[in-house]
Amino acid sequence: MSSAHQVFDEMPKPVPTSTEVDVLKYSKRVVLKRILGRGDGGLGLIDQRVVVGGWVKSSREMRKEHQPLMNSEAKEGVDGRDAKRVEVFQSRIPFLRTVMQAFGGNNTRTKEKVESIVRKPTHSVSFLQISDGSSVTSLQIMVDSSIAPTSQLMPIGTCILVEGVLQKSSIQGKHAIELKAEKMLHIGIVDQDTYPLSKKKLSLASLRDYPQFRPRTTTVASIFKIRNALNQASHIFFQNHGFVHVEVPIITATYTEELSENFQLSTSNFSTEEPEREEPVSADDHDIISLETIKLLIDEQSKKVEELKRSNSNKEALAAAVQDLHKANLLAAELETRSKSKAKTKDHLATENLFFSNQAFLTASGSLHLESFASAFGNVYVLGPRFQANKSESKKRLAENWMIETEIAFSELKDVMRCAEDFVKFVCNWVSKNCFEDLYFLSKRGDRSLINRLDSMALAPFESITYATAIEVLNKAADTNFETKIQSGVALTEEHESYLVDEFYKKPIIIFDYPKELKPFNARLNDDRKTVAAFDLIVPKVGALIRGSQKEERLNHLNRRIKDIGLQKDQYEWYLDLCKQGTVKHSGFNVMFDVMVVFATGLSDVRDVVPFPRHHGKLNN
Amino acid sequence: MSSAHQVFDEMPKPVPTSTEVDVLKYSKRVVLKRILGRGDGGLGLIDQRVVVGGWVKSSREMRKEHQPLMNSEAKEGVDGRDAKRVEVFQSRIPFLRTVMQAFGGNNTRTKEKVESIVRKPTHSVSFLQISDGSSVTSLQIMVDSSIAPTSQLMPIGTCILVEGVLQKSSIQGKHAIELKAEKMLHIGIVDQDTYPLSKKKLSLASLRDYPQFRPRTTTVASIFKIRNALNQASHIFFQNHGFVHVEVPIITATYTEELSENFQLSTSNFSTEEPEREEPVSADDHDIISLETIKLLIDEQSKKVEELKRSNSNKEALAAAVQDLHKANLLAAELETRSKSKAKTKDHLATENLFFSNQAFLTASGSLHLESFASAFGNVYVLGPRFQANKSESKKRLAENWMIETEIAFSELKDVMRCAEDFVKFVCNWVSKNCFEDLYFLSKRGDRSLINRLDSMALAPFESITYATAIEVLNKAADTNFETKIQSGVALTEEHESYLVDEFYKKPIIIFDYPKELKPFNARLNDDRKTVAAFDLIVPKVGALIRGSQKEERLNHLNRRIKDIGLQKDQYEWYLDLCKQGTVKHSGFNVMFDVMVVFATGLSDVRDVVPFPRHHGKLNN
Repeated sequence: MSSAHQVFDEMPKPVPTSTEVDVLKYSKRVVLKRILGRGDGGLGLIDQRVVVGGWVKSSREMRKEHQPLMNSEAKEGVDGRDAKRVEVFQSRIPFLRTVMQAFGGNNTRTKEKVESIVRKPTHSVSFLQISDGSSVTSLQIMVDSSIAPTSQLMPIGTCILVEGVLQKSSIQGKHAIELKAEKMLHIGIVDQDTYPLSKKKLSLASLRDYPQFRPRTTTVASIFKIRNALNQASHIFFQNHGFVHVEVPIITATYTEELSENFQLSTSNFSTEEPEREEPVSADDHDIISLETIKLLIDEQSKKVEELKRSNSNKEALAAAVQDLHKANLLAAELETRSKSKAKTKDHLATENLFFSNQAFLTASGSLHLESFASAFGNVYVLGPRFQANKSESKKRLAENWMIETEIAFSELKDVMRCAEDFVKFVCNWVSKNCFEDLYFLSKRGDRSLINRLDSMALAPFESITYATAIEVLNKAADTNFETKIQSGVALTEEHESYLVDEFYKKPIIIFDYPKELKPFNARLNDDRKTVAAFDLIVPKVGALIRGSQKEERLNHLNRRIKDIGLQKDQYEWYLDLCKQGTVKHSGFNVMFDVMVVFATGLSDVRDVVPFPRHHGKLNN
Repeated sequence: MSSAHQVFDEMPKPVPTSTEVDVLKYSKRVVLKRILGRGDGGLGLIDQRVVVGGWVKSSREMRKEHQPLMNSEAKEGVDGRDAKRVEVFQSRIPFLRTVMQAFGGNNTRTKEKVESIVRKPTHSVSFLQISDGSSVTSLQIMVDSSIAPTSQLMPIGTCILVEGVLQKSSIQGKHAIELKAEKMLHIGIVDQDTYPLSKKKLSLASLRDYPQFRPRTTTVASIFKIRNALNQASHIFFQNHGFVHVEVPIITATYTEELSENFQLSTSNFSTEEPEREEPVSADDHDIISLETIKLLIDEQSKKVEELKRSNSNKEALAAAVQDLHKANLLAAELETRSKSKAKTKDHLATENLFFSNQAFLTASGSLHLESFASAFGNVYVLGPRFQANKSESKKRLAENWMIETEIAFSELKDVMRCAEDFVKFVCNWVSKNCFEDLYFLSKRGDRSLINRLDSMALAPFESITYATAIEVLNKAADTNFETKIQSGVALTEEHESYLVDEFYKKPIIIFDYPKELKPFNARLNDDRKTVAAFDLIVPKVGALIRGSQKEERLNHLNRRIKDIGLQKDQYEWYLDLCKQGTVKHSGFNVMFDVMVVFATGLSDVRDVVPFPRHHGKLNN
């Protein structure tokens, strides 16, 4: 059993306000928080009849062997006929034990049935700690064995819905009150042999194998309640400031991420037919390169990209390699389409199954689409999933990441830097105020500085420095040996960010005016023609949390940048339209929502804060 | 120019409260709604100096030909040197006109340049109606040609950021106030030849070709503000009732939709190599069917499914055909994998590019994943995108649909039916109260019964009827000829739903206890063993808005159902775990969020209420 209630005793508690309990609408039960979250620990509710539901977190049985069944505690449900049956059962015990042994004791249903019969004559009282996810503390349920079979109730994870009366706890010390069960309305049994949570406390890493069960643990429940509060706080912040939520598309024709690979879509594995192997395809009279050759190139280039990602040292080389890979993919796709249309008379199956008649990706960023709505509404935002097919392991990014993206028209870099700072302060304050119980629990279990760190976010302005200053500071850190050597133009790595935030400034920082090579193609070029009006907001412990920029509103600059880094201009025509028709200065940022949850829970791995994390490898659910 | 302001004059207005205007944080301008949304039409703000930004909705120029430039109105920015230049310009006019004609007047930049020069000597005042998306009404800006070149300002769609002083309108009748421009801070010009909105009013259908521009129209802006309000109201409803928002995954291994095809994912078009054509692959010694044969089968089956979808008459046959197609796809995938692993020595390129080592789909429904969190938190919900690769045209469903999904533990069918009804009433009331301006505008433009219909939702309880009753009522509708004949077991079509809601009951209805064949595999079997505890909530005009059910919590029933309809059981093992370990009665529903926007705006096509709608065919952005 966890020590959650002891921990919780030290916390400030709300003053109890009522002797009534609200029944939860739509499920006819009382949420445990309404009982346990009161400052009096529920004492004011004694003698109330309630229905509660939840899952067993721990259990204890008090047996009274050979005690006659017909005592006062067990009077309900047990009558003369039962007493007679008890005798019969007792006489059958030796036989039943033999049956059980014959089955090897491994058949769970037989075992349970036998056990329940064997136990029948033993009167017992079980004490179950149940949780319904609403509160860190659990409610103690006292169940007499005459109400329900103890063997079914005891396993951790068992679900019960129970009606009873609240009374003073029959065990001194731990709980102020308990529920004396009078009627068991539902039991969802557990197979102890296969239920992973029934064993001793598992690490967060082990729990990742059971995403369908882990929210039932107190720690994971607290994490997801904080995640929910961050979601809520984010909407409140943006709605309060007049932002319109725009559900930008997930499926897109625009290959938005420059530094990573995008996912592609098909409706069937068999929609893309390959040309026959024995005759290398020259798809067009003007094509001097075969599809086969390009595929070999793609293969090699993919390996190169993976290597560069692993080494994480040269972002420019990586960007170039990814671009090459992307171009090769597009070229191959084009050749393939051409060869297919030629082969169509032979094989009309080829393109019929295609859902979109051109390449379709999962979006890596919604900002381009969002900018079009900013050019009408001014302030817009979206919370949604974004994707990157990045095979390298990361504690901060998955294949599927939830992000908040925002765009503000008529704004410049400094405006959105301020907005990003205000946003972080608002949500930290919100969580601190609304999730105190969960934060307290998590901080006692892991990161003890968690609450202080969240509270301190609101205390002082963040430090704003240019990228050039950051490089200067890092160069002066003579006593620190960084793995990646510091020089102007290099992408800052986690060790650099950590030094700046945790050791040098000792507070959140905003780094701005990055070299253009390190930022997306549409970050606005500064007058020096080398840097762009982009920023990263970096917080203690987790590093970069928000990335933003003023967007390039000048068509000539945007065209040049698209050309320089070799993007496919035709994919961006609709976006360039915004620059051509009523262009506006605008800026925006994206918040790595999952990383924000990591920050607000004091954890270290994003896989522990995402309901069903997606990454390279086997997909199980 | 629209008649929006006239319409707006009839509306109830808030009492003005201040003679100050709030500057919008993060963009240093005043949002137009803060000026125009006041009950006094902004009169209380006269003489205030403000910065506003927006896009020109319409414009008018008052020329004063041959009037000397140096008058009082134009004193700023025009001095003696300008007067001298004016003379030079005037002398060049005949030449410039010739140049323009020589270029055929088609080169926009030349044309504009020439026009601006030609116009220079003519002093004029332009009246621009600008909108920043915050308000249905627009603000009139009076700009003297000495402040900024009139030719640049006049085109519809031009973006301006302007500083000026609020004054009484210089034109009688239409507006109470206007802004006299003093300083033009930004102009984002428009190329009239290519800007689609500069022509006469376009229909919603035509506007679909310009998703990047259409939010700049008053109608589309109103739609997306109502969409935003529905998003906000949905979160408020569920958070107020203690629901936890859970971002269930988009990428999934579980093929969730039975009645439609799912999208599949790859990281590259070239990750799946086909076996060589000339030797039909017998992938395994036990395989008696070749991959080629299966592919032909898939091809035929796809056509069959499409036909059945088009006819929309026999949902059972469709479900069976989709199942067959799905099975064939899985079989083919398996054969292919086997043949690949055999061919691997020959060709190691095959599986290396796979990101997930098994099939990955875009989720069609998050409810299975959500149920796992309900089995820990009790009440959960999510707003997110869901996908189906449905090639047939529909006014209600796209390839990418935003949905609200919710699950409630310890609840039964009637509980979630009540929750769904309360939800609809809450959001309709919210929109009615918070988007009155937009509703009023849309109702005057299109559906005049819109506001009444929304308001009436809250007035009376919805009618709840069984599927059997619905069939009975429809059978008695002797005077109506339905396209799809009514008989028990048939899926209700839009014409049936419309008859029941719009003609018979004349209010929203909830139909429940459907034949099991018409509902998802995990809807809970009723005691009659024929129907399931599932419901549809049907509203006037748009039809089905919410679909929900009590979920099957009994393992044996779920197993049987999975077997009966031929689902791949191994894909559902993680989900079946929930039934095995601490199972709980639970129920949920999903709201077709995009359809809800259609309902709340009085429109008829979902493509007009989704930012960038996705459907079969070319993907443009």
